[in-house]
Amino acid sequence: MRDAYFDQLDSIVDDLVAMTYEVQHAVREATKALLTADADIAEKVISDDAAIDAARERIEARSFELLALQQPVAKDLRMLVAALRMVADLERMGDLSVHVAKVARLRVPATAVPEELVPTIERMATVAEKMVGTVAGIIAERDVDGARQLEEDDEEMDSLRRSSFRLMLDDSWPHGVEPAVDIALLGRYYERIADHAVSLARRVVYLVTGKTVSALEL
Amino acid sequence: MRDAYFDQLDSIVDDLVAMTYEVQHAVREATKALLTADADIAEKVISDDAAIDAARERIEARSFELLALQQPVAKDLRMLVAALRMVADLERMGDLSVHVAKVARLRVPATAVPEELVPTIERMATVAEKMVGTVAGIIAERDVDGARQLEEDDEEMDSLRRSSFRLMLDDSWPHGVEPAVDIALLGRYYERIADHAVSLARRVVYLVTGKTVSALEL
Repeated sequence: MRDAYFDQLDSIVDDLVAMTYEVQHAVREATKALLTADADIAEKVISDDAAIDAARERIEARSFELLALQQPVAKDLRMLVAALRMVADLERMGDLSVHVAKVARLRVPATAVPEELVPTIERMATVAEKMVGTVAGIIAERDVDGARQLEEDDEEMDSLRRSSFRLMLDDSWPHGVEPAVDIALLGRYYERIADHAVSLARRVVYLVTGKTVSALEL
Repeated sequence: MRDAYFDQLDSIVDDLVAMTYEVQHAVREATKALLTADADIAEKVISDDAAIDAARERIEARSFELLALQQPVAKDLRMLVAALRMVADLERMGDLSVHVAKVARLRVPATAVPEELVPTIERMATVAEKMVGTVAGIIAERDVDGARQLEEDDEEMDSLRRSSFRLMLDDSWPHGVEPAVDIALLGRYYERIADHAVSLARRVVYLVTGKTVSALEL
């Protein structure tokens, strides 16, 4: 009985990792739709989000079943409650990718991102996608050190966002209101993806060490 | 022992309700700071958020303790796991109020909201604040019918947001990029507060009825 139980715990971790890679794929494809003004890719990101929602439901149901049937204590209890929260973060990251894809779709055949902002948005997207990949590794390997990298990436994300505001709010901004509003919201979506990645990593750190990230002085 | 346990469950519900009213206060004060360009009120919303974060930690710790010590099953287990998620929603709503307050603070002594958008933003804020109040009632009374009202309020929020975009993206918009970016982000913050309210209400519906909101055909 206990062996089957540990197998089930392991398989929840595997499912979380797989779901994280699905989210990473959504971030990557949403960005591709955005930068190439490709409506088909945008549509696919939007419709594929149902699979991410389904993964959430599946992992929730199984975590719940284990909680109710096995009455775990201490570390296993913490792990299952953390899994319930992590799937919520991951589902939101999927939703945020859908938001990016919807901005892309709204502006087709034009692209939502003016040329001088392409490097900034491209870098935000790369950082976000990389952070999601790092999270997958952190969950799979319980790699507490990976969390340190995420905090650095998150700082780069903040600085990219500030630089996008500087460009848009400069007197020489030639594109008017609509692209500025798009960029402000896109920046917010990528920043939130990064925030959720940091939050996921912190949960793993807490699970593994029983300490918060700040206590580890990352 | 079991009596003390039920008292503790009740007291978690009481704490959730109190935390919801704290969030409602934050939404109200952030809006006041925004519409009156009052830096002191904005600062207070920002610093008071620590109390909302502390409430989250307190409720989490107690829910966890009950989970670990009492090994609840079925409905009580669902209730505790739901509490853990609800505090996460509530904390985010507090953060979103802080974001509103920070936009207000950034533009003092001016107001971030151009005159012709004041009615729209004021209404968004009123709807958001009312929705948070409704959530408090839903949690306190396990009032499933209240959830129906929230879905309607959420539709009004979406329509207000669309109307703010129409104003900003119209050729006659005279205010340039900065206020448009502020309004786009403010609209997003209020919309997210509304989304979290709906999500909280749905959790209560599920707790009380074992059914999702869509299954109830609200």
